[in-house]
Amino acid sequence: MKLEHGGVTSPRGFRTGGIRAGVKRQGPDVALVYSEVPANIAAVFTTNMVKAAPVLWSQRLVEGRKTFRGVVVNSGNANACTGPTGLDHAIAMGEAAARALDVGSDEVLVASTGVIGVPLPIDLICDAIAQLGPSISSSPASADEAALAITTTDTFTKQAAVQVEIGGYMVTVGGMAKGSGMIHPNMATMLAFITTDANVSPAMFDRMLRESAADSYNMISVDGDTSTNDSLFAFANGLAENPEITDTGLHYNQLKEALHQVNTDLARQIIRDGEGATKLIEVRVQGAQTKEQASVLAKSVLTSNLVKTAFFGEDPNWGRILAAMGYAGVAFDPARVDVDFHSKAGSIRLMEDSEPLPFDEITARQILHEPEIEVRITLHEGSAEAVGWGCDLSYEYVKINGEYRT
Amino acid sequence: MKLEHGGVTSPRGFRTGGIRAGVKRQGPDVALVYSEVPANIAAVFTTNMVKAAPVLWSQRLVEGRKTFRGVVVNSGNANACTGPTGLDHAIAMGEAAARALDVGSDEVLVASTGVIGVPLPIDLICDAIAQLGPSISSSPASADEAALAITTTDTFTKQAAVQVEIGGYMVTVGGMAKGSGMIHPNMATMLAFITTDANVSPAMFDRMLRESAADSYNMISVDGDTSTNDSLFAFANGLAENPEITDTGLHYNQLKEALHQVNTDLARQIIRDGEGATKLIEVRVQGAQTKEQASVLAKSVLTSNLVKTAFFGEDPNWGRILAAMGYAGVAFDPARVDVDFHSKAGSIRLMEDSEPLPFDEITARQILHEPEIEVRITLHEGSAEAVGWGCDLSYEYVKINGEYRT
Repeated sequence: MKLEHGGVTSPRGFRTGGIRAGVKRQGPDVALVYSEVPANIAAVFTTNMVKAAPVLWSQRLVEGRKTFRGVVVNSGNANACTGPTGLDHAIAMGEAAARALDVGSDEVLVASTGVIGVPLPIDLICDAIAQLGPSISSSPASADEAALAITTTDTFTKQAAVQVEIGGYMVTVGGMAKGSGMIHPNMATMLAFITTDANVSPAMFDRMLRESAADSYNMISVDGDTSTNDSLFAFANGLAENPEITDTGLHYNQLKEALHQVNTDLARQIIRDGEGATKLIEVRVQGAQTKEQASVLAKSVLTSNLVKTAFFGEDPNWGRILAAMGYAGVAFDPARVDVDFHSKAGSIRLMEDSEPLPFDEITARQILHEPEIEVRITLHEGSAEAVGWGCDLSYEYVKINGEYRT
Repeated sequence: MKLEHGGVTSPRGFRTGGIRAGVKRQGPDVALVYSEVPANIAAVFTTNMVKAAPVLWSQRLVEGRKTFRGVVVNSGNANACTGPTGLDHAIAMGEAAARALDVGSDEVLVASTGVIGVPLPIDLICDAIAQLGPSISSSPASADEAALAITTTDTFTKQAAVQVEIGGYMVTVGGMAKGSGMIHPNMATMLAFITTDANVSPAMFDRMLRESAADSYNMISVDGDTSTNDSLFAFANGLAENPEITDTGLHYNQLKEALHQVNTDLARQIIRDGEGATKLIEVRVQGAQTKEQASVLAKSVLTSNLVKTAFFGEDPNWGRILAAMGYAGVAFDPARVDVDFHSKAGSIRLMEDSEPLPFDEITARQILHEPEIEVRITLHEGSAEAVGWGCDLSYEYVKINGEYRT
């Protein structure tokens, strides 16, 4: 069950807050997320070869231990391409947070987002952390402030929470994220922080997070670029007191479903706030031989500039969709593809067995005029499917990303 | 030596011409290229899984025989996603050309570009071919007309020719191409036609064309999409009477160099005419372990929307360049990257050992204000290198590709 106005403090035993250190031009730019008891950790980091200092540091911490007490985040500066000093700064941020929260210095993870290649104003940040520590709380207002403090050029904060009953115990999963906001000179960064009071073994928690991330954050694309700082952290503190989930049975599936709802919700919010995006495009590839095949085809369609500009122009351009599938690098029968468009305004089949159908232009325009559009691609090769989300490519995207850094 | 105003009729024994069939809204839209004697063929076709009928038909012809007399091309309609009828039309085009040229019907290749999913107006095209046959010539005017007839939304025709002395004989290589013009509803298509009077064995000719295409047409990117119709045809008719090139010795290298100059010239013209392009970006990755590594990194930088919009905005954004290398999917040392920008206005080093250098903003702006910019990326891992070409991403690109098909 989805909670209204839920976030990282919806599950029991989590506190959070945000504060202004002065890294960004305005607004809060440092956040803490804290668990009152040690929480099992699961984390996914950017696959970019170029990793920011906080990513390198957090990866090292996660390799060393399985329970953590929290994470400290700053926005406005990514602490990337900052050399050995950058690593010192990431460590110092974690230590400042550990002092403020009165926990061990290896129990706090670190994340940053913002400009790259500029040294972190570490003293400002450490002072802000010390000030923030005593004021964190489990109130929705604190969650809102934290969600705002992790944003860069996001135009709205991104939060979600879901409750599910597991073996008679009410379990909650909450989360917040920041999207592909761009601060010059750098690249899109995605950060997501998930909290749950579920009692789940580290191995099972890690497994379900990876499975869910593959079908949520890894299936969204604003511009196809992955950044130096992308990170997803999930904390499970067990305070719901459900029997510990130690295998992939019913309880595993129940918790995973709740976790996946939160992740998918946050992922879609990130896309809706994509730079210059005017439409959310959902691409579902069905009737595939394997999920991998479906997933590669969906992503190729979602990242094609020609497809993206066609949606901006509300042009029912099945040809670009078929071409983007064709160069995806996976095999499929190019003579047996159906393409349908759906939105609140209706449904239309544009292509059947890879040949265009005559369709009503007015209906097509109405369907494409909606802010959320589903593209359904059917292969007739099997029963596997995959869903991904993307956005259109607008003048505004070029404007936001083409402006000189001043 | 590069020839002024050279094209497909610069080598001995080739005739060409263009005529209006009425497929496009205006201008000539059917072209013939003809060799007075049987010519060895080398060809490269789109790797897109979805192939247009003329591609399928020409591929089949090339598998069946090694010498051809010519190729017939239409623009305005790609004959793609047109089912079995499309294949009949491609065959009919080839047969009409064979009749007009008085050669065997399996001696003429076929190419098309334009809208997809619409049946070819085959009668119009066959009538035009019959009319064009007797009027083809080796004059520069005929070459100009053919180069115009293969264009779609290209803003200029693309031709080149180079002469080289091989074993005391003057050998000429000529060519024409069309770029990423877009006609709704479809995708960018690249067609290139190369002619030479060199005497070269089919195996050696095929080998040098593939080597050259890998470093020219396959290293350019306007929007990363490959189309259903991309084709490259090369004819060698031997009329230069040089001793036949049958191995990879000096003469092979001399001819390949001339061929590669023509291909690179045409490839750069295609990029300069990229939709909405305001700048040509050359990316050179040097100091790599392997050419493959360098090539993958260069392409990742050239296809990044964030890099492309930064160049449109004349923003010296080394961060996006490094990030695009990072997600390219090949390993490199992310701590040892140098990035330099060069143009007619000067040179500037932006990054050394993956850390940004202080640079003069005014100099950087002057360099980036030029229409051609070279990005030099140095890895310090070996001596391999690769060069690729792309363009910026402008408002105009979104406008051209986002407009409704009316």
